[in-house]
Amino acid sequence: MVDDSPLHKPLRPKDGTAGIERPRALADSIPEQAGPLLALASRHVVSARQFDRATLEQLFRLSAQYESTPALMHLPLQGKILISAFYEPSTRTRLSFESAWHRLGGDIMSITDPKSTGMAKGESIQDIAEMFNNYGDVIVLRNNEDRAVYDMLDSLRIPIVNAGNGIDEHPTQALADLYTIFKWRPDLLDQDLPADQRIRVGIIGVPNRMRTVRSLLLLLARFPEAVDEVVLFTDEDSPFDPDQREELESAGLRLRVARDLDSELPGLDVIYINAIAWVGDGYEELGTDLKLSTQSPLKPGSIILHPLARGEELSTDLDPTPHNWYFAQARGAVFVRMALLTCMVRRVSEVMDTP
Amino acid sequence: MVDDSPLHKPLRPKDGTAGIERPRALADSIPEQAGPLLALASRHVVSARQFDRATLEQLFRLSAQYESTPALMHLPLQGKILISAFYEPSTRTRLSFESAWHRLGGDIMSITDPKSTGMAKGESIQDIAEMFNNYGDVIVLRNNEDRAVYDMLDSLRIPIVNAGNGIDEHPTQALADLYTIFKWRPDLLDQDLPADQRIRVGIIGVPNRMRTVRSLLLLLARFPEAVDEVVLFTDEDSPFDPDQREELESAGLRLRVARDLDSELPGLDVIYINAIAWVGDGYEELGTDLKLSTQSPLKPGSIILHPLARGEELSTDLDPTPHNWYFAQARGAVFVRMALLTCMVRRVSEVMDTP
Amino acid sequence: MVDDSPLHKPLRPKDGTAGIERPRALADSIPEQAGPLLALASRHVVSARQFDRATLEQLFRLSAQYESTPALMHLPLQGKILISAFYEPSTRTRLSFESAWHRLGGDIMSITDPKSTGMAKGESIQDIAEMFNNYGDVIVLRNNEDRAVYDMLDSLRIPIVNAGNGIDEHPTQALADLYTIFKWRPDLLDQDLPADQRIRVGIIGVPNRMRTVRSLLLLLARFPEAVDEVVLFTDEDSPFDPDQREELESAGLRLRVARDLDSELPGLDVIYINAIAWVGDGYEELGTDLKLSTQSPLKPGSIILHPLARGEELSTDLDPTPHNWYFAQARGAVFVRMALLTCMVRRVSEVMDTP
Repeated sequence: MVDDSPLHKPLRPKDGTAGIERPRALADSIPEQAGPLLALASRHVVSARQFDRATLEQLFRLSAQYESTPALMHLPLQGKILISAFYEPSTRTRLSFESAWHRLGGDIMSITDPKSTGMAKGESIQDIAEMFNNYGDVIVLRNNEDRAVYDMLDSLRIPIVNAGNGIDEHPTQALADLYTIFKWRPDLLDQDLPADQRIRVGIIGVPNRMRTVRSLLLLLARFPEAVDEVVLFTDEDSPFDPDQREELESAGLRLRVARDLDSELPGLDVIYINAIAWVGDGYEELGTDLKLSTQSPLKPGSIILHPLARGEELSTDLDPTPHNWYFAQARGAVFVRMALLTCMVRRVSEVMDTP
Repeated sequence: MVDDSPLHKPLRPKDGTAGIERPRALADSIPEQAGPLLALASRHVVSARQFDRATLEQLFRLSAQYESTPALMHLPLQGKILISAFYEPSTRTRLSFESAWHRLGGDIMSITDPKSTGMAKGESIQDIAEMFNNYGDVIVLRNNEDRAVYDMLDSLRIPIVNAGNGIDEHPTQALADLYTIFKWRPDLLDQDLPADQRIRVGIIGVPNRMRTVRSLLLLLARFPEAVDEVVLFTDEDSPFDPDQREELESAGLRLRVARDLDSELPGLDVIYINAIAWVGDGYEELGTDLKLSTQSPLKPGSIILHPLARGEELSTDLDPTPHNWYFAQARGAVFVRMALLTCMVRRVSEVMDTP
Repeated sequence: MVDDSPLHKPLRPKDGTAGIERPRALADSIPEQAGPLLALASRHVVSARQFDRATLEQLFRLSAQYESTPALMHLPLQGKILISAFYEPSTRTRLSFESAWHRLGGDIMSITDPKSTGMAKGESIQDIAEMFNNYGDVIVLRNNEDRAVYDMLDSLRIPIVNAGNGIDEHPTQALADLYTIFKWRPDLLDQDLPADQRIRVGIIGVPNRMRTVRSLLLLLARFPEAVDEVVLFTDEDSPFDPDQREELESAGLRLRVARDLDSELPGLDVIYINAIAWVGDGYEELGTDLKLSTQSPLKPGSIILHPLARGEELSTDLDPTPHNWYFAQARGAVFVRMALLTCMVRRVSEVMDTP
């Protein structure tokens, strides 16, 4: 190679990937239990509501083990086929799932062009489900209609993962969000956490119109003793569905709605920001004043999460700061999906420490 | 997992999959012969006309062995690359072939967007064939022009499978159709079948405009002693191509055209129904009176086949009945394609009982 | 199988693949050196300018070894994931890279529909690069904007290969071009080549608007002692970028621009012809008089190269002649990419003769 080119800099990890050294500490802080993971075998994963605390802890433990293991000695999904069906366009989530499946040794068939499918020709969702039964071992489905994934369940003989259904849910994104928080602070899993160690979480988004926010709130409600308060930032007058707020509060989550982001930021430990809301056939952006940059009055030591892709609401000048945990969050999403998929195809016993 | 959700029902095989227990019986009823399968090595598969009776029997035997073997000990296509080229949109057939190839251990490169291809830019079909030679081991081609697959043959040094060429043929669909019939009644392979045991087959479709019907009739003509009569249901005045009927009848197949489906149903053992005809650039539906439902006067014990995807011509109320063999047919298509592809890439000796 | 069908001809190598027996001779003519290949580990490959003579020789040696090895005993890319990102439509180059990666045992995730991607939704190229970091081991990128691949570099922690960026470069195509020339004449690598053995190269294309021509000229400039003269055929008044001609000539390459192809052909040993120039959002064809056919006054023993896909500028009547090295060139491109990718993912030590 010619050596005078800027192309020849050796590749090095960037500052923006804070957190990749921490999964080992998280894994060590959680005692292994086989039961909750074995119970995921052949289960559909449609809603964040399905996960209890013990299952979440064990999933995060396994995710952290995968993340801290550079190369797997054993590929537990060899010979297994994933049907990666993205009827709503998405590159990021699709590649994240497909990378997870490939790293476990499995094969993949992708559907990326909705117009080429039977669904576009008017085939029923039940017949598509029956087709999937014959061709693969697990389905990952993204669809812009809330009902599609639910309408498939009765026809399926293989498990399905909801990778985003309209404005309803995106449970594996929420798993990745919480996994990031616990990598940052494994002590938050301590059920006797002192009250002054609890975190205050700000969420910029609309709970009844953003699937990522809906699923995240459901998972946070499994850890009420770790959360002092959740502050929701939105311009909406009615940001909750009728029963949504009640379900969360009855689980012990303390919720408050606010509009002025900057006056709250100095008191928030975790800020979750999301650019995009699915509305009908298109995307809607949030209010323009709900933005983060290095000019924002962020609390020292606080972290920012974002499911990505981002728009102008999250300035790139935050990328090289310690507040940037959104890159770690994206990276971690692959390992969370590896953990979940391993369990769903009944192969978790092959990767547990105590067989 | 939280246990009070309907998502947590364990997954169980559905009633609609009648037939999946039967492949072992079919395999046992056919003595293994290596010759016909070895002769498929490096052969193109374009027309159902290419298969003689001995080859069909051995392919169905191998298909049945694959179907009755939950996990292959040996993956005969490891290191082999499939070029899955669907210039006419199709999810179902593409996934069926790709699932077959993956289960045999091979890798796949897919072309699913015709507009992104050289063919769309005016590249000749011969140059595309030459390109395929360099990149893969087998080609599966779907194209809406009858001629494309034939025009490729002279340029190819790797074998090709016709997965549907305009209104001409779809030979692997016909293999799957016949495989289903013989799983249902392995005794139909008996060359001394008593006359009163022969089946009467109804086909709802137009022989000169539906590739699935064309290929199916050609394969049925290899087993005239198993078929008492084939009744074709169509509104067309001239449903056959000039030589088509003569070719089938000279092979011993008894053909009759009818219009009133319900008056014939009580006498039919197998009903093949197909919703869709490819006409020019689009699809055309059949007449509205040619429909099946639980209200149809079906003969007890008769079976229904449909290449799917279906429209309104086949009511879903038939799904939970014993007439539903169309789900078994879709499932079996994967194993038929596994058998055929194994032979084409010269690996059949690795999976035969008597090496 | 029924034996009276033209489908049943056994498949045989065609005359058009001249050159596939020659890689062994090329490999034998180059002494193995580990250094240049090891230096490619984790390097980006964006410009042909990056390759010095020693690196090119070793890459061609390894390419020739791959080409002359029917089945690899060891798959050096097992467990590695390629992100095959084609934001500009291309089937040929994509399949060539993907075939190379699969033959080395790796897995692939493809992006083939630009409209379904974050880039289409306005996501920044840096964020897309950060996403790729998390999901794969190597990126192959085609994009119709010159800058995209350069703008990604600072954000990447995994190596990227430029598979065509606007009108700028297509370095792996140029590697395949030169590999073909040296397979045809391994003696051209002799630094003491007698002057009368040097080749005269004709290039039909515009150096400042065709990425394949730009990259090819840069690589030819690494072997000035093998080239007597390069004659460029174009109707353009200013076919070079301001510094382009100077850079090539200062490296020792003798360049001349001509317009009358037929008067020069009898003196040319290698003719490189290219149909298509990327201009803005579309393709532009060359002048209609710059065409080759068996009627052209080709020098006996001369060879024709074309990156394909071709249009009317290269007549198919040349396909069965010994001038046809464009099919060998397309075939060789897979092996060149195998060699390059092996080095980039730090696995070259696994395939070297002298470990």
